[in-house]
Amino acid sequence: MDPDTVAKAFVEHYYNLFDMNRVGLASLYQDASMLTFEGQKTQGSQNIVAKLTALPFQQCKHHITTVDCQPSGPAGGMLVFVSGNLQLSGEQHALKFSQVFLKSSILSSMTMWH
Amino acid sequence: MDPDTVAKAFVEHYYNLFDMNRVGLASLYQDASMLTFEGQKTQGSQNIVAKLTALPFQQCKHHITTVDCQPSGPAGGMLVFVSGNLQLSGEQHALKFSQVFLKSSILSSMTMWH
Repeated sequence: MDPDTVAKAFVEHYYNLFDMNRVGLASLYQDASMLTFEGQKTQGSQNIVAKLTALPFQQCKHHITTVDCQPSGPAGGMLVFVSGNLQLSGEQHALKFSQVFLKSSILSSMTMWH
Repeated sequence: MDPDTVAKAFVEHYYNLFDMNRVGLASLYQDASMLTFEGQKTQGSQNIVAKLTALPFQQCKHHITTVDCQPSGPAGGMLVFVSGNLQLSGEQHALKFSQVFLKSSILSSMTMWH
């Protein structure tokens, strides 16, 4: 599979887990992973999932607008940049978001709402 | 200097060059650098500067809203995520943008307009 296809499959898997089974994201992050969410840093799979499950909304649906991918490092690592909309249950307007994934031997990510 | 201060100084330097002396960005990218700009990939310092100087606007001013930084890799590398507004000369409304920098021994970046 080419890197763009891999990146797109990964991103779809990530947001499916986020929307349907948020605690399942623990399987993607490692102890050395870092999440930056709206400027707040969290390290480690368990802490990251605790942060994401404590967000003040439960039902949500991510709609991906763009996925860009660059190779990163020697071991098949990749830098992935996603933009999209986040629809929250009961809210009329979707929220725009951007998220970056840096995936090498570990996964880290950074999310910003617009 | 702490990593957040380094990241902020780097980002300010990058956009000052972009706004005041765009060809000067050649000094920041290397031959192995990759730029993804609105989904289009360009590799190498000279090609990247050719892409950026060919954008359909000359006078512009980047206003940074947020700068987030994570350490990346063993050698002081960093992943930097920027959001902000791009004001074009003669345009009433600013354009929202996000940009990611991955800086290790080489610099790569990805830009998206919203």
